[in-house]
Amino acid sequence: MPTILPQPYLLFLGDTTEAGFAKTALGLVDWAGDRCVGELAVAGCTVTTGLPRMSPAQARAAGAQSLVIGVANQGGVIGDSWIAALVEAMEAGLDLISGLHMRLAAVSALAEAAQRTGRRLIDIRTPPPSIPVATGRKRSGNRLLTVGTDCALGKKYTALALHRAFVARGVDADFRATGQTGIMIAGGGIPMDAVVSDFEAGAAEMLSPDAEPRHWDVIEGQGSIYHPAYAAVSLGLLHGSQPDVFVVCHDPARTHVLGLDGFALPSIEEVIDLTVHLGSRTNRAIRCGGVSFNTGRYGEETAEALMSAESDRLGLPVADPIRGGAAFDALVANCLA
Amino acid sequence: MPTILPQPYLLFLGDTTEAGFAKTALGLVDWAGDRCVGELAVAGCTVTTGLPRMSPAQARAAGAQSLVIGVANQGGVIGDSWIAALVEAMEAGLDLISGLHMRLAAVSALAEAAQRTGRRLIDIRTPPPSIPVATGRKRSGNRLLTVGTDCALGKKYTALALHRAFVARGVDADFRATGQTGIMIAGGGIPMDAVVSDFEAGAAEMLSPDAEPRHWDVIEGQGSIYHPAYAAVSLGLLHGSQPDVFVVCHDPARTHVLGLDGFALPSIEEVIDLTVHLGSRTNRAIRCGGVSFNTGRYGEETAEALMSAESDRLGLPVADPIRGGAAFDALVANCLA
Repeated sequence: MPTILPQPYLLFLGDTTEAGFAKTALGLVDWAGDRCVGELAVAGCTVTTGLPRMSPAQARAAGAQSLVIGVANQGGVIGDSWIAALVEAMEAGLDLISGLHMRLAAVSALAEAAQRTGRRLIDIRTPPPSIPVATGRKRSGNRLLTVGTDCALGKKYTALALHRAFVARGVDADFRATGQTGIMIAGGGIPMDAVVSDFEAGAAEMLSPDAEPRHWDVIEGQGSIYHPAYAAVSLGLLHGSQPDVFVVCHDPARTHVLGLDGFALPSIEEVIDLTVHLGSRTNRAIRCGGVSFNTGRYGEETAEALMSAESDRLGLPVADPIRGGAAFDALVANCLA
Repeated sequence: MPTILPQPYLLFLGDTTEAGFAKTALGLVDWAGDRCVGELAVAGCTVTTGLPRMSPAQARAAGAQSLVIGVANQGGVIGDSWIAALVEAMEAGLDLISGLHMRLAAVSALAEAAQRTGRRLIDIRTPPPSIPVATGRKRSGNRLLTVGTDCALGKKYTALALHRAFVARGVDADFRATGQTGIMIAGGGIPMDAVVSDFEAGAAEMLSPDAEPRHWDVIEGQGSIYHPAYAAVSLGLLHGSQPDVFVVCHDPARTHVLGLDGFALPSIEEVIDLTVHLGSRTNRAIRCGGVSFNTGRYGEETAEALMSAESDRLGLPVADPIRGGAAFDALVANCLA
């Protein structure tokens, strides 16, 4: 389990120009907004969380205890252009929290500043020790996993929204976090993409242990089974999660894999079929509970029409959890059916 | 870059009394005999590789650059009775190479001797630093990957035999190792099961870089795409290797996944279909070159009959590389076709 993180947060956006890469900051605002005082960016950043921009000193004065690196670029490294702002944050009295692959202390300027200011460098992307090799043994209780046609299109958000809806309906349920933002929100979990690949499925087994027969674990998905870089993470998580139900997350405006223009997005049907095929290896009863659309780029009417047409075409509930409504209720009901 | 090991080797047998525990040393003599100058054992050892016994100083004089721990005892630890010989090897000018679970530097006498003599302690289970995230970019040259219906049924052996046959036919080819024994044989490689899962496909991309148009990389497979614990390793390796050709390795006597009795072995056709489906994500031209049977448990006639029937059924060459012969020639020819 991760350390108790010092809160509230100042959210750091770096020099990000793609909202998709700022999903940590955006997720924290949505799901832990009462614990975020503002945002900080450096030159070139075109993304905002909607919170007020603050200097580290202003954030500290507003009560912030830490700066969270709220962006994840490809490779998970700390940008050179970020360092001055991160040092300034420590000098203003903030600890640094990072979920990147690269350790904060691996940047000598940060290690030196932490030493000098007495601030902490907190890397939350550390898997627990002694993860076992997976056994494939069927566990008790019920599991839902969000999967996707790509990265960064709503798998965490959908899992959080389904978990919230399950609890609202009186279902005993836990949200199981598998990425840095989810772990920051949930206060626990396993950073699945940081697990050594031989133990990937074993880590997923550890994350959703045996439970009461009526209990649901709602597990945050990672990557996509068709992603040319991250499919290993997705498959280990699928095998180890042995979900009874999965929900496919999709952005209807996206035609290609994020950051990889040479790769067309797989269709929803391809993801359903492959997830059933691969997932049935550890749970023969696996089924698709429906589809979660990320319709943020569309107006209400267009979004409703898109989802309604897709629902008719697939014969499954299709909903945008951000929009909620009857479509989302139908998705929740079908997952629990 | 993948690790490059100092060669030639002095093979260390410890105090082994079971040939089964000296598999690494015996494999090195079979596949890299020209890069092994001799063997070294301590009191109690009853196993030999057939190479001359040498002291570390004699091996050094014969050109050895390193001592390879060629045995794996139960538990994967370094025996107390081995330490004096290992220290003597470093004093004679040899680096130490180990594929054991236990780190060489965890033995204080070895860490101290390495410091004192300036020799290296090389743990080949450690992946190289700074593995990039996969890009999915198509690389030049040709690639063959061995895949399997399970673990431990001949993927390394098949890749080595195919590489040898390619070279014998005048094909410019490299064997690309992904496990500890293979890495020692090749003198380099990446231990794919020890790579963090987010970088699994990236490591595979690193392992078989751009090459001349007629060049072949013959890549050692790992695990199985249907394995409930290790499929993440297999899928990352498949995506990153972007093979033009794959060969399915199978043990016709095996009905269930090794060590997991609840899991039936997938059929060869299932493995072919799923490998084509998943592999086409990074190489649309992927095809199955044939099947490698491990027929060690059968007599010659039964083995031939089994392979012939399977070849007719699948419409593909089926051969046991240990038996060789016309069937293996047909497999080689079809891979290169």
